[in-house]
Amino acid sequence: MTTISKENKLVNLINVFSVEPARQQQLVDLLVHATETAMRHLPGFISANIHRSLDGKKVVNYAQWRSVEDFEAMLKNPAAKPHTEQAAALGEFEPGLYEVVDTQSAATPNV
Amino acid sequence: MTTISKENKLVNLINVFSVEPARQQQLVDLLVHATETAMRHLPGFISANIHRSLDGKKVVNYAQWRSVEDFEAMLKNPAAKPHTEQAAALGEFEPGLYEVVDTQSAATPNV
Repeated sequence: MTTISKENKLVNLINVFSVEPARQQQLVDLLVHATETAMRHLPGFISANIHRSLDGKKVVNYAQWRSVEDFEAMLKNPAAKPHTEQAAALGEFEPGLYEVVDTQSAATPNV
Repeated sequence: MTTISKENKLVNLINVFSVEPARQQQLVDLLVHATETAMRHLPGFISANIHRSLDGKKVVNYAQWRSVEDFEAMLKNPAAKPHTEQAAALGEFEPGLYEVVDTQSAATPNV
């Protein structure tokens, strides 16, 4: 389970992949495998959260890192490179680094 | 605080806004205000989590809804409409509905 909070001061990578619907599952599997075998063992990795779009056309990785420096070290790490290249071969992606500025919940609980 | 989990079976709206860096804060303020005054009072709303990109060019709303039906009812709700239009006036946006397929944390704790 991952928590989103202003207080944790993490750096959040939100990476939106555009993909052929026929290849969405393949991309999901690849990202799950990359997280399991490489990313989660790297310094400063906090979490990865893989999402599939209901229309089949996108996959989003919402990942948390301890710092920008840890994220940039990952990009240069040979352990991460083949996974990044394989994902790039399956679709276009648009990554961004974010900080949480506000979180709000329902005025009256809905679940 | 928001939690991301496969088990909660929520529908996640991930909405990526592209914005002039000079207007990023204005867009953040607008989304925070819209959540506070309208969205969080609507049926089925679970949470909204506003993120600013470190490069100033994007804002992401990661919002959770109880169901696709609740989300679609919001789109038709007159209480939500002015906020959606104001956000559209500040930048382009690309929304998508997602389900969580996998969450992973660090092999050894980093924080």
